[in-house]
Amino acid sequence: MKKITFSLTSSKQLAKDIASVAGIPLGESKVFRFADGEIMARCESRVQGKICYIVQSTISPSTDTIFEVLMFADALKNAGAFEVVLIAPYFGYSRQDRVAVKGEPITAKLVAQMIETAGISRVISVDLHTQQIQGFFSIPVTNIDTSVLFGRYFARRFDELGIVHSDVCVVSPDHGSANRGRDVSSELNGASLAVIDKRRPAPNKSEVINVVGDVRGKVCLVVDDIIDTGGTVNNAVDALLAKGATQVYVAATHAIFSTCHLNPKIKEFVTTDSVEKEIEGAKVLSLAELIAQNI
Amino acid sequence: MKKITFSLTSSKQLAKDIASVAGIPLGESKVFRFADGEIMARCESRVQGKICYIVQSTISPSTDTIFEVLMFADALKNAGAFEVVLIAPYFGYSRQDRVAVKGEPITAKLVAQMIETAGISRVISVDLHTQQIQGFFSIPVTNIDTSVLFGRYFARRFDELGIVHSDVCVVSPDHGSANRGRDVSSELNGASLAVIDKRRPAPNKSEVINVVGDVRGKVCLVVDDIIDTGGTVNNAVDALLAKGATQVYVAATHAIFSTCHLNPKIKEFVTTDSVEKEIEGAKVLSLAELIAQNI
Amino acid sequence: MKKITFSLTSSKQLAKDIASVAGIPLGESKVFRFADGEIMARCESRVQGKICYIVQSTISPSTDTIFEVLMFADALKNAGAFEVVLIAPYFGYSRQDRVAVKGEPITAKLVAQMIETAGISRVISVDLHTQQIQGFFSIPVTNIDTSVLFGRYFARRFDELGIVHSDVCVVSPDHGSANRGRDVSSELNGASLAVIDKRRPAPNKSEVINVVGDVRGKVCLVVDDIIDTGGTVNNAVDALLAKGATQVYVAATHAIFSTCHLNPKIKEFVTTDSVEKEIEGAKVLSLAELIAQNI
Amino acid sequence: MKKITFSLTSSKQLAKDIASVAGIPLGESKVFRFADGEIMARCESRVQGKICYIVQSTISPSTDTIFEVLMFADALKNAGAFEVVLIAPYFGYSRQDRVAVKGEPITAKLVAQMIETAGISRVISVDLHTQQIQGFFSIPVTNIDTSVLFGRYFARRFDELGIVHSDVCVVSPDHGSANRGRDVSSELNGASLAVIDKRRPAPNKSEVINVVGDVRGKVCLVVDDIIDTGGTVNNAVDALLAKGATQVYVAATHAIFSTCHLNPKIKEFVTTDSVEKEIEGAKVLSLAELIAQNI
Amino acid sequence: MKKITFSLTSSKQLAKDIASVAGIPLGESKVFRFADGEIMARCESRVQGKICYIVQSTISPSTDTIFEVLMFADALKNAGAFEVVLIAPYFGYSRQDRVAVKGEPITAKLVAQMIETAGISRVISVDLHTQQIQGFFSIPVTNIDTSVLFGRYFARRFDELGIVHSDVCVVSPDHGSANRGRDVSSELNGASLAVIDKRRPAPNKSEVINVVGDVRGKVCLVVDDIIDTGGTVNNAVDALLAKGATQVYVAATHAIFSTCHLNPKIKEFVTTDSVEKEIEGAKVLSLAELIAQNI
Amino acid sequence: MKKITFSLTSSKQLAKDIASVAGIPLGESKVFRFADGEIMARCESRVQGKICYIVQSTISPSTDTIFEVLMFADALKNAGAFEVVLIAPYFGYSRQDRVAVKGEPITAKLVAQMIETAGISRVISVDLHTQQIQGFFSIPVTNIDTSVLFGRYFARRFDELGIVHSDVCVVSPDHGSANRGRDVSSELNGASLAVIDKRRPAPNKSEVINVVGDVRGKVCLVVDDIIDTGGTVNNAVDALLAKGATQVYVAATHAIFSTCHLNPKIKEFVTTDSVEKEIEGAKVLSLAELIAQNI
Repeated sequence: MKKITFSLTSSKQLAKDIASVAGIPLGESKVFRFADGEIMARCESRVQGKICYIVQSTISPSTDTIFEVLMFADALKNAGAFEVVLIAPYFGYSRQDRVAVKGEPITAKLVAQMIETAGISRVISVDLHTQQIQGFFSIPVTNIDTSVLFGRYFARRFDELGIVHSDVCVVSPDHGSANRGRDVSSELNGASLAVIDKRRPAPNKSEVINVVGDVRGKVCLVVDDIIDTGGTVNNAVDALLAKGATQVYVAATHAIFSTCHLNPKIKEFVTTDSVEKEIEGAKVLSLAELIAQNI
Repeated sequence: MKKITFSLTSSKQLAKDIASVAGIPLGESKVFRFADGEIMARCESRVQGKICYIVQSTISPSTDTIFEVLMFADALKNAGAFEVVLIAPYFGYSRQDRVAVKGEPITAKLVAQMIETAGISRVISVDLHTQQIQGFFSIPVTNIDTSVLFGRYFARRFDELGIVHSDVCVVSPDHGSANRGRDVSSELNGASLAVIDKRRPAPNKSEVINVVGDVRGKVCLVVDDIIDTGGTVNNAVDALLAKGATQVYVAATHAIFSTCHLNPKIKEFVTTDSVEKEIEGAKVLSLAELIAQNI
Repeated sequence: MKKITFSLTSSKQLAKDIASVAGIPLGESKVFRFADGEIMARCESRVQGKICYIVQSTISPSTDTIFEVLMFADALKNAGAFEVVLIAPYFGYSRQDRVAVKGEPITAKLVAQMIETAGISRVISVDLHTQQIQGFFSIPVTNIDTSVLFGRYFARRFDELGIVHSDVCVVSPDHGSANRGRDVSSELNGASLAVIDKRRPAPNKSEVINVVGDVRGKVCLVVDDIIDTGGTVNNAVDALLAKGATQVYVAATHAIFSTCHLNPKIKEFVTTDSVEKEIEGAKVLSLAELIAQNI
Repeated sequence: MKKITFSLTSSKQLAKDIASVAGIPLGESKVFRFADGEIMARCESRVQGKICYIVQSTISPSTDTIFEVLMFADALKNAGAFEVVLIAPYFGYSRQDRVAVKGEPITAKLVAQMIETAGISRVISVDLHTQQIQGFFSIPVTNIDTSVLFGRYFARRFDELGIVHSDVCVVSPDHGSANRGRDVSSELNGASLAVIDKRRPAPNKSEVINVVGDVRGKVCLVVDDIIDTGGTVNNAVDALLAKGATQVYVAATHAIFSTCHLNPKIKEFVTTDSVEKEIEGAKVLSLAELIAQNI
Repeated sequence: MKKITFSLTSSKQLAKDIASVAGIPLGESKVFRFADGEIMARCESRVQGKICYIVQSTISPSTDTIFEVLMFADALKNAGAFEVVLIAPYFGYSRQDRVAVKGEPITAKLVAQMIETAGISRVISVDLHTQQIQGFFSIPVTNIDTSVLFGRYFARRFDELGIVHSDVCVVSPDHGSANRGRDVSSELNGASLAVIDKRRPAPNKSEVINVVGDVRGKVCLVVDDIIDTGGTVNNAVDALLAKGATQVYVAATHAIFSTCHLNPKIKEFVTTDSVEKEIEGAKVLSLAELIAQNI
Repeated sequence: MKKITFSLTSSKQLAKDIASVAGIPLGESKVFRFADGEIMARCESRVQGKICYIVQSTISPSTDTIFEVLMFADALKNAGAFEVVLIAPYFGYSRQDRVAVKGEPITAKLVAQMIETAGISRVISVDLHTQQIQGFFSIPVTNIDTSVLFGRYFARRFDELGIVHSDVCVVSPDHGSANRGRDVSSELNGASLAVIDKRRPAPNKSEVINVVGDVRGKVCLVVDDIIDTGGTVNNAVDALLAKGATQVYVAATHAIFSTCHLNPKIKEFVTTDSVEKEIEGAKVLSLAELIAQNI
C-alpha cells in the first residue's frame, strides 16, 4: 500500500528526515490561522487509499499542536486516507497521567481518546513519561526506547575522550527514571549506577538532595526523559560535583527548555530532535532512523 | 438532583449571572498554566452526584478555551459528577462546518465529537452558525434563538426614539442570514425586509454589493450572527446609506471583533454577552435569562 | 484487493454502467418480500475478503431502499467482506438535516449513523443537499459535484444551437443554490448570473417572486439540485419569461418527480441517472464515469 | 421522574390503554409523509427531562413502522428527553434472527443495533420469536411471556363451557413452540400435551404431518406465537381432527394475518392486541395490564 | 498480507494441523501463571502488520481459556498486528445464550462483546450451539457446519461394514438438534429419520422418553452437537435399543466429557478434535481441513 | 433512588459490613458451576430501577472472580438495574499495567474495558497499584487512599506501647511505594523516613539491598500496598534489623499471601479486609467505613 508523510508546525525537519530515511514521499500540508485565531490545517496532496504518517511532537503551544494533529487527521480521513498514523516523538500532557490532586483531569488519557476519535489508528512515540500511558489508548502504541541510542553514543564518546567505562557512573535524577539509567548503563561496560534522592528526612524538615551510590572520582552521566525548566538536572549536577564527581555529562530525550538555562558546569549536553529548538552547545542525536525502523 | 455551575476563563461574568438567575450555586474552578504552557483545569468544589454546568464561550484562543472545557469535564467525571452540561453561548470553529476546500477537516464536527468523548452529555448554545451543527452531535443540543430578544429590544427602542415600525427595514447582510432577519422583523409590526447581495455579475468581473429590497428613506436594522473582522457589516452600512437609508442600526449575537473597528456611521450597535469583550458604545443584552430558562 | 459491485432495487442500470466503466464485476443480489411485507436482501456471490460496492439511490420508497442497503451491508459483512462502500447518488432524507420545527428528528444524521452501524465504511454521493451532511458521518464521504458535468454539457449544447455564451444567464431558483449556479456558469464564458428571490416584503403580505439580476433578452439556464414536486422550478420559469427571458433551459441533478409535470415552456430539461425514472423529453447525463473515477 | 407515553401509527389504541392503566399521560405525536413519500415523525409535547415511552408494534409495513420509531426517538432525544423506552409488543423482523441461508443478513440484530443507535435505552416486547433476540441488544430488554394470560383465559373458558381440563390437550404446532405449549398447559390442571411434527421420513419423500401424543377424543388447544399466512395452524387443525380430536381451539400472541383465512373448523380463536387488526370472530386479550406492570 | 497462527493452551495440536494444512507458520506464544494465579499470555514472534490467527477452543476451565484469548489478542494488537482472528472450534458459554431463569446473564453475548473489545475482528467457530449466537457479534462470524463431514464419514463406514444406507435411521436426541440430523442424513441415501422426544405427558407426571419415528430393525446413528455429562445420549441409546434398534452409532461435534462415561452399548463413537481430550475407543475426525478452507 | 448491595464469592463479609454501615439492603445472589466448570451468577432480588453495588475483590482465582463480576453486572442490567457500581477493594491484574516485556498485553486496561462493556458505570477501589490505572477507564473511578487509616492506627498503637513517634521510621520497601510511606508518616509527628533500595551496583553484579535513611535505634514501620509471596517485605525486615532497627512493624493494604510465610521477626502485621483470608496474628482494619463514605 502507498505511504505518505506529513509535517505540520512542530517537527518539520524531523518529518523530512524520517521521510528520507524511510523512503516515503513527503506530502503538502498547509496550517494557518484566521483573523480570530482559529486554526486551519489542510492537506494538499492526494491521500486516497494511502497510509498517512503525521509527524508532530505535541510540544508547546500544546493545545494548538494537538489540535492541528486532530484536524489534519480528520482532513485525511475525509479525503479517503486508508489509515492515519501519528508519530509524536514528544507526547504533550504526558505528565498529567493521573489524578495527582483531587479534582484534576487525566489529560494524557483525554488526549489519547481524542486521537482515537479523530480517526488515528496507530501512534508512535519516544520515551513516554510513564509506560502506563500506552494503556490509555485502545489503538496500538509503539513506545521507542532511546536508551541504546544514548548508551552507544556515550560508549563511543568516552572512548574518544579516553574515559574508561568503569570510571563512569550513570545517574538517575529521581526514582522515576531509575530504570532508564540502568538501561543506558548496560551499553557502558563496568559503569556503576547512582540515583539522586530528594526527600524530607521528616515532616516539616527541608528537602535534602542525597546521592545514593558512590560518585567520588567518577565521571557522571545524568540521564533523564524530559528537561523542562531544568531545575532537577541543574541541582543534580551541583550535588554530584559536591560529592566528588570529576565531570558531569547530561543526556535527556526531550529538551523542552521552557525557561531553561543549563548549569554551566555540565561538560556536555546530549539530546534528540524530538523537540526542534536551538540549544547552544548541545549535541543532538537524530530519532529519524529509529522511528523509520518502526514504521 | 443537586446542580452546580462553573466558569473557566472566557465567560466568568455570564456564568455568575446565569447562576444567580437560575438560583444554582457557582462552584470553584482553577485554571492555570505550567512553565511549558500546558494548561491545568481543576475543580475545587464537591460535585459527586451533581449535575454540573460549565459556562464557557469557546472564543479565541479557541483551542485553549475548548481544551479547558474538555479537561474540566474529565475532571468533573473523575470526581463523580452525575452529568456534565456545556453552556457554550458562542461555539468556536462553527464556521468550519463543511469541507469548503478539498483536503480540509470538518472541525466543528471534530469539536462536537471531542465534547462527547470528554463525557459531556448535553450542550446549550446560542445562534449556532448553521443549524446542521446540531446533527454533528449524538447528544441533545439546545440551540437558543435570539431573534425575539433582539426584536423586542428594538421594538421598545424605536418606540422610545419615535421611529414608526413601518419605517424600519430589517436587513440581512448575506443570504445565509435571511431567515434571522425575517424572524427579528416579526417583532416589528409593518417593518419591511431587505438582503445584501454580494455577487460577481459574470466570471472575472469584480464583486458588486446589491441591496435587494427598497431602503430609500428607511431606518435600517442590520441583523447578523457573528461579527469577526467587521468587513461584511461595515460594507453593508455604506451600501445602505448610499441607497438612501436614513439611519443604520446593527445587531449581532456574537461580537468576536478580532481586529474590528465598527463603521462610525452606525447609529447604534447591539450585541449580547456571549463574548465578554469591551466594545465602546455598544449596548449589550444579557443572555443569562434565556439560558437559565433552558437549563 | 478484489472488488465487486452490487445493485439492489433502485439503481440497477447505473450499477451496471459503473461496474462496466470501472471494470469491476457485478455480483448477484436477491431482494424480495415475505408474505407480511418484510424484506429479504441476500448476497449470492462470494465476497470473502473483497471490497464491495453497493450502488443504490435511497429514493422513494426511501425507508425500504435505505433498509435494503443496511440489510445487504450486514449480509456482506457476515459473509466476510473486507469493506463495504455505499454509492448512493441520491441520498434520501437529506432535506431533514436540521431541527426545522421544534420536536423534529434530524433524520439525515440518523440515516448516517445507521449506515455506519451496518458496517459500511465509506460513502460516495452526488450533490448532497447541504454540505454539512458530510459532518453527520464519522466515515469518509465523497460528495461528487456535477457542476462541471452540466456546465460542459451546456457549453457544447449552446454551441450546437448557435447561442453565444455571453447571452446566457445562469439562474439559481433560490438562495441555497446560488453557489451551484456560479459553479456551472464558470464553464460558460461570459454568462451572467441571476437568483430567484422569494420573499414576503413585510409580515402578512403575500410571497413575491423577484428575479435578482437582469434576464431581459437572455437565454436562461435554471440550475437546481433536486426536483421533487417541481413547484419551485415551474414558477421560476414563468417569472423569468415574464421578466423578458427569451428561452429557459433547466438542469437538475436529482429528478425525483414525485407528482411532477414540468412546465411545458421549458426548452430542454437535463438531469442525471441518480434517479432511474422515465421522464419524457428529458436529456439524461450519466454519472457512471464520474462515480467510477471516485471509487 | 415524570413520564409520558406516545403512539405513532401502529398501536394507537394499545398506547391509550397502557397510558390509562399505568396512569401516564399520552403525549402528542404527528406522523405524516412528504410528496416523495419520506416520513416525518414529530413530537408536539414537552419532554425535557421526562422518561418517554413509545408504543408501537413494528408490524407491516415494517420498515416504515421501525423508521418511525427511530425518527421519533431521535426527535425525543433532541428535545431533551431523559430516557426513551420502546414498547414494541410485536417486534418486526424477529424471524430473521440467524443466517438461515448463506449470504443473508441477521436483520433482527440490525434492527436491535439501530434502536440503540437512535438513543433508545430500554425495550419491552412480548413473546419474542426466539429468546436469543434479547442478546442482540446491549440495552435491557423485557420479554413479557403471555402463557399465563392465555392459560388463565382458557381455564375459565373451558370451565364456562363445561369442558373438563383433563380432556384438554395443548398442542404445539411445531418443535420451536413446544415450551410455550408446556407453559400454557400448566394453568390447565391435568391437560395433556402434543406436538405437531412435520418431517420428511427420508430425503426426497414428501413432508408428513405427524401428531406426537394422543389427541383422540380430546379438546385440542393449539398455541403459537405468530400467525402470519396461517398455513401452519390451518394444517395442524386438519391433522388434529383427522387424528380424532373432538374440537380445536387456537391461541396465538401475534395475529399478523398477512393473507390469512382461518380454518373454519376452528372453534374459537384467541389473540392479543399486539397487532391492531380486525379479525372476525376473534377474541382479543389486552396486553395493556401486563405491559403497564413492566414499565 | 503475511499470516501467522498461534495456539495457547487448549488446542495445541489442532493449531499445528491447521497451520500445516493452510501453509501458515505457527508463531511462538508463552502462557504461564504468577504466584497468585494471574495468567500471563505473551507473544514471542514478530506480528507487526500480519493477520494473526489464535486457535483455541474455549473449553474448561472456560474463564481461563477465554481470558487467555483476550489477553493474547491485546498483546498482538499492542505489537502492531494488522488483524486478529479467533478460531474457537468450541465456543465456551454458548449454552448461556438467553435469560433462561429471571436474573441470569446472557453470558454468550458477554463473551462475544469481550472478544470484540479485545480487538478481535473475525471469529471462526464450529457448530455453534444456536445459530443466533452469530447475532451476538458485530464482527463477522463463520459458523462451520460439520454435517457433511460426519455424513460422508458414515456413508463410507457403513459401506465398509456392509450396512445398507436404507437400513440406517439418523436420530436427533432432542428437538433442538432435529435440523442437524436431517443434514447428516442427506449424505446417506435412503436413511430414515427419528427424534427423541422427552416430555411430561401432563404436569406433575414423570418424564417419558418417546422415539418419534420407526427404529425397529434399524441401525441408528445418533447425532448431537455437544456431549457434556453424556446423560442425554446414553439415555437415548437405551431407548433406541428398547424400541428394537439393532445397533447404535453416536456422532457428536464437541466431546466435552465433563464427567462422562459413554454407554457401553454404543457401537462406535465419532467426534472431532474441537476438544483435545483422550476418549477411549473414539474415532476423531479432524477439523483442520474444514477450518483451513475458511481462513 | 433505591440502592442494593450484592456480594459474589470473594468479599462476602465485607459486603455485609458495607451494607450495614451504609444502611443499604444486601440482595440475594447465587453463584455456582455447571458440570463442565462454566460459572452461573444469578441475581435473585428485584433490582428494576435501582443502583446496584457489587462488592468483590477480584483476587485469585482472578479470572473467575472477574468473570463473576461481569456476568452479574450483565444479569443486573438485563433485569433493569438503573446503574451498576463495582466495589473492588483489590483490583486483580493491576500489576499488568504496562507492556513490561515486548509481546505482552496490558491486562489491567483490558479488564477495565470489560468492566465498562459489561455495563458497569462506576468503580470504587482501594490503593490501586499505580494511579495511572484510573486512566484505563472511561467511567469514574474512586481510588480510596488508606494512608490515613494506617497512619492513625499506628499513632494510637505506638502511644499505647509507649513508643515516641520521633523514634519511628516509616520505611518504603521500594521506590514505587515512597509516596505511600510519606503519607502514612504524616500521621506520626516527628517520624523519619527511609526507603529500601534494591539495585545492582553495576551490570553483572548481584543485587544489593541498601537502606536509604538512618534506621539505627529506630522502630521501623514498613508500608506496602500488596503482599503476594512476601519476599520483598521479608527481606526488608532482615535488612532493617541488620542496620540496627530495634523493632519492625509491617502494614500492607492487600494481603494476597499466595504462598506467603511472614518473617517471624515482624513485631506486628496490620492489613485490611480487602482480601478475606485468615492470617495468623494479623491485625485487620476494616475498609467498610471508608468505602461506605464513598458510595
